[in-house]
Amino acid sequence: MKSKKVAIIGASGYSGEVLVQLLLNHPHAELVAVTSRQNAGQTLAQVFPKFASHPKSKNLRFVEPNVEILAKQADVVFLALPHGVAAEFAVPLLKASCVVIDLSADFRLKSAEVYKEFYAHDHPAPELLKKSVYGLPEIYRDQIKKSLLIASPGCYPTSILLPVIPLLKAGLVKPTGIIADSLSGVSGAGRKAETDYLFCECNESVRPYGVPKHRHLSEIEEQLSLAAKTQVTIQFTPHLIPVNRGILTTLYLEPKGKLSDENISVCYEKFYGDEPFVRLLEGKSLPDTKNVTGTNIIEIAWRLDPRTGRLIVMSAEDNLVKGASGQAVQSMNILCGFPETAGLI
Amino acid sequence: MKSKKVAIIGASGYSGEVLVQLLLNHPHAELVAVTSRQNAGQTLAQVFPKFASHPKSKNLRFVEPNVEILAKQADVVFLALPHGVAAEFAVPLLKASCVVIDLSADFRLKSAEVYKEFYAHDHPAPELLKKSVYGLPEIYRDQIKKSLLIASPGCYPTSILLPVIPLLKAGLVKPTGIIADSLSGVSGAGRKAETDYLFCECNESVRPYGVPKHRHLSEIEEQLSLAAKTQVTIQFTPHLIPVNRGILTTLYLEPKGKLSDENISVCYEKFYGDEPFVRLLEGKSLPDTKNVTGTNIIEIAWRLDPRTGRLIVMSAEDNLVKGASGQAVQSMNILCGFPETAGLI
Amino acid sequence: MKSKKVAIIGASGYSGEVLVQLLLNHPHAELVAVTSRQNAGQTLAQVFPKFASHPKSKNLRFVEPNVEILAKQADVVFLALPHGVAAEFAVPLLKASCVVIDLSADFRLKSAEVYKEFYAHDHPAPELLKKSVYGLPEIYRDQIKKSLLIASPGCYPTSILLPVIPLLKAGLVKPTGIIADSLSGVSGAGRKAETDYLFCECNESVRPYGVPKHRHLSEIEEQLSLAAKTQVTIQFTPHLIPVNRGILTTLYLEPKGKLSDENISVCYEKFYGDEPFVRLLEGKSLPDTKNVTGTNIIEIAWRLDPRTGRLIVMSAEDNLVKGASGQAVQSMNILCGFPETAGLI
Amino acid sequence: MKSKKVAIIGASGYSGEVLVQLLLNHPHAELVAVTSRQNAGQTLAQVFPKFASHPKSKNLRFVEPNVEILAKQADVVFLALPHGVAAEFAVPLLKASCVVIDLSADFRLKSAEVYKEFYAHDHPAPELLKKSVYGLPEIYRDQIKKSLLIASPGCYPTSILLPVIPLLKAGLVKPTGIIADSLSGVSGAGRKAETDYLFCECNESVRPYGVPKHRHLSEIEEQLSLAAKTQVTIQFTPHLIPVNRGILTTLYLEPKGKLSDENISVCYEKFYGDEPFVRLLEGKSLPDTKNVTGTNIIEIAWRLDPRTGRLIVMSAEDNLVKGASGQAVQSMNILCGFPETAGLI
Repeated sequence: MKSKKVAIIGASGYSGEVLVQLLLNHPHAELVAVTSRQNAGQTLAQVFPKFASHPKSKNLRFVEPNVEILAKQADVVFLALPHGVAAEFAVPLLKASCVVIDLSADFRLKSAEVYKEFYAHDHPAPELLKKSVYGLPEIYRDQIKKSLLIASPGCYPTSILLPVIPLLKAGLVKPTGIIADSLSGVSGAGRKAETDYLFCECNESVRPYGVPKHRHLSEIEEQLSLAAKTQVTIQFTPHLIPVNRGILTTLYLEPKGKLSDENISVCYEKFYGDEPFVRLLEGKSLPDTKNVTGTNIIEIAWRLDPRTGRLIVMSAEDNLVKGASGQAVQSMNILCGFPETAGLI
Repeated sequence: MKSKKVAIIGASGYSGEVLVQLLLNHPHAELVAVTSRQNAGQTLAQVFPKFASHPKSKNLRFVEPNVEILAKQADVVFLALPHGVAAEFAVPLLKASCVVIDLSADFRLKSAEVYKEFYAHDHPAPELLKKSVYGLPEIYRDQIKKSLLIASPGCYPTSILLPVIPLLKAGLVKPTGIIADSLSGVSGAGRKAETDYLFCECNESVRPYGVPKHRHLSEIEEQLSLAAKTQVTIQFTPHLIPVNRGILTTLYLEPKGKLSDENISVCYEKFYGDEPFVRLLEGKSLPDTKNVTGTNIIEIAWRLDPRTGRLIVMSAEDNLVKGASGQAVQSMNILCGFPETAGLI
Repeated sequence: MKSKKVAIIGASGYSGEVLVQLLLNHPHAELVAVTSRQNAGQTLAQVFPKFASHPKSKNLRFVEPNVEILAKQADVVFLALPHGVAAEFAVPLLKASCVVIDLSADFRLKSAEVYKEFYAHDHPAPELLKKSVYGLPEIYRDQIKKSLLIASPGCYPTSILLPVIPLLKAGLVKPTGIIADSLSGVSGAGRKAETDYLFCECNESVRPYGVPKHRHLSEIEEQLSLAAKTQVTIQFTPHLIPVNRGILTTLYLEPKGKLSDENISVCYEKFYGDEPFVRLLEGKSLPDTKNVTGTNIIEIAWRLDPRTGRLIVMSAEDNLVKGASGQAVQSMNILCGFPETAGLI
Repeated sequence: MKSKKVAIIGASGYSGEVLVQLLLNHPHAELVAVTSRQNAGQTLAQVFPKFASHPKSKNLRFVEPNVEILAKQADVVFLALPHGVAAEFAVPLLKASCVVIDLSADFRLKSAEVYKEFYAHDHPAPELLKKSVYGLPEIYRDQIKKSLLIASPGCYPTSILLPVIPLLKAGLVKPTGIIADSLSGVSGAGRKAETDYLFCECNESVRPYGVPKHRHLSEIEEQLSLAAKTQVTIQFTPHLIPVNRGILTTLYLEPKGKLSDENISVCYEKFYGDEPFVRLLEGKSLPDTKNVTGTNIIEIAWRLDPRTGRLIVMSAEDNLVKGASGQAVQSMNILCGFPETAGLI
């Protein structure tokens, strides 16, 4: 199988670091360039000592991001940049015939208006919103195969969409009244030097934030609306938890009509029975982030509550892998014709 | 002010340890006895090295629990025992004219049937259920003053009842559809030698448990029903979080009629404006367990979500203090005529 | 007992926060002012939500540090400032007849030259070095009583000096070859927005730093030399450990002549038998930071190793209490004639 | 390359879990059996949910350990058992021509007397002590190639021996006065249901233990003595640190004669320059467990202290990988003629 040359723009954050790790170990990808404005000139090993012993890391040195040069070096370019900035790179890279896999929010929405509402600035390249594919492979595998611009989903959205979309598509739950209560590890805040994320401010602390209107709501609701074929508005409460990695989401859903355990089981099996990265928990098992951190897997379990009539669905994922970089590599695998699990198991 | 002699039966768990700490430092209480079957014969300092330097700990040694002796030594007896066991001690202690403050679930419910449904055994002393007072001082202060048997509330119930009861009493929210999503530190599981609670099983892990029917639901729903004057059934999902202490509860409520921020603010101010242990957060502040651990305070904040029409209320408390031993001491203070904050600030 | 009015200059760091807590609860001190350049104008409760419910915090608001005003308001001024800056405030405050208790390194050394060697700038007020007293109450209690300028010791020095000074003074160990291996919680690095101290960089990480010449060596060696009456040079290796608070120091010492367990026990008992804040561990107990965090106590244990002939001494303290703010309050108590344990137990 | 069939006896502890993970992903090994008395009958996925999605885990179910059956199924058998028990299995497995890689202490020592001194019971198979090879590949690679019984080193010993042996062999440091101060994550204590290792007892706690005579001293000193060609006795102090995985060891050594940075650098480069799993840190870098957890790498850095004349050497490793299961797989690779890094990078 012919391997691809890949580059990462913005490789010094936590998602970037995980991307580096996955791509260094990928059997069909060759990491040819990593960029970082603040670390330009340093070797990969100087910035991330843990890669120092990797045989393929020897010649990698952070460079300033230069689209012209990168476009010549790489077939596939990953953008691990803040929203707004990512689009600036995506436009010329696409023109230069690179495949772009963007981990920012820039191309996740179909509507430039919604983007402006949630991100507080005009969309920098609205014409591309039609071309991008939302990179949730379990839902958009066929479109990903044919796309040149992948908008890789956010960590919270992945933990909500994968459990809910099958239920909405199958008409098992109502599109109204959905509540998502999410708990995230601190790496979700990025490698930012802010006092809020200091060890002593996060350790022995549990707290909600961004209540009630978090930016990720925009892509969550757009995707749920597509699945439900009606406008969906949900309640979403993120919390910060003292772990490095992992998101645990508990979802409260209202069954549409009478629902049995078997209905739900059949629905999930049909959607995800063959998916390598979705683990449907059986018996008494409930999701636990420690069983998924470091992997590209999302765990899903559910309980029907006879006392309230509600359906509780719980999911666990690694926010930096299935919630970010692993899922982006999964999209690359699909798009490039590699085995979907290459470099991810 | 005349001080009281107090004893603790079952003082070797986490709640017992906090009780010891609070009572050693209490200006009007004299800790005269601590019991523990497994630690009988050892000094307080051998079991809890951190009390070794306390001037009042010198002569304290764990003894086997003997009701007859304890009844002679102590005016007030705290029970920090498993449910079922607590009642066995409460009956003879009450007969011997001791005041009993029970931290177990044994006297929290009015109904022996509900007790059996949730605790899977017959209630050991159903006749006492009428005499006990649910020890939530902010709600039952007057009854606590006159009672000889206090059923101190559970940690999860406290974090849910204090935020919700005022809203139900004021008729601001519907008694239906209430969801409580709670995150608890590991001390909530007690000092039990079980692999599930080993450091490596809890650290870097976030997980739900006891879904969907946790035992604490029984007292939560009984108390909410009393406040709403109608039968209330709620959704409650506890999660285990890698912190030693602290509970963070996020509540999803449906307003009854049109509700403004001011309505809620006025309601809470009326109920809790003068309460020394309820902190109503203003402005952009949200609860954070690190601001309450080690204290008897519960933090409460709320947000009306114009997108969904729901009211989100969040609370934070120390599960071992306001959620257990601190609240029990608060009840003792009320009952004995001490200043309510004595030994708690 | 007449209470004193106290102020804290630089009250927004971790040591400052603990000082606020101790002084708010102190029976003989009245906290009249807290300063912070970055937080000036905000209430104490806005900066530290956990103090919001404290009855004495109501009227406290951070102000810009103004020596003239502070000198009129306060009898005792605590300086919780970076080295170099502290001296700038100490000079005029002393002139204005305030008692100054400085938590920085500015007045800990007797020699301005050694200060310059370790702190890389000229000492800002060398004339005061003769007047200051090193605020280690167990060693300098008498001098503290009479001093107006207390140089409160560093956290690492406290954890090393208290265990070693008695042994050197008694001539039980050699003044050569001393090794101190210390493990510190992350609060020791202060509330600085630096990526090195982010949660994800410290959690699941253990690392040495500042090897081999840490600044605290200067005061450690000066004090050990005074005790040994000869120049002492030690080996000191600090490590960063993922806890909020606590220092654990393991000391490797060489006995001078034949030494028995009893020799050491007698020595420590003589020095510390009556000290309220030194806990000499007996039997099989070894120090554990969790038994001292939140207290002003230092735990000390020792083992003679017959295999190597060495004496191993281990200590545990809370770096922010006995290692900083608690010890500073202890000095204030001594100096002001309050009971030494006032506000500290 | 012909793959080998491998089995793990005692696969339900932390080392066993990591062995399972490494062997499931090993390109030349086929995991055919896992045993566990307590989990017999359960699938691999029931005991370790995180392996549930692994394609090769599907048919693996824990069985009772039966040597006869295992000997027929497997070419190589890993023993992840307590000391004493491991030898009982090793004897018949070797007779049945299996290669045995033992992670316990049973075959690490050459002397049955020293074994008895440190492990408090007679060695169960002293005749095998001559046949076993100490499985430290960087030191005993040639012997490992030809051995059928590998005694894989302990976690602490690995962190001490790899840094010290080259210096002793090169005669750069004295064989006397060596001090090893080690900090270990809690997984080093195993998956035992003991209160000492509960989350709340370890979190926010740092403590020494096993002072001054830890069992691992026996193998450390035997190996150092072989390297120094003289009897070596060292000082070793282990500490428990609140991380899941990782050991950080700080070594205090005395140079033999005048030593320069270059001498040490040349020595380490000569020994480890080509070793894939030893990372010699350059410049200002110091070891950090977070850079090695999850890998088979040991980081080593050193500092000469001109003030004391001592050499400080620091190492970091993952106690469960390079300190246990990874190193065992490395030995298997060597012994079976696989690339040494197979399944480990």
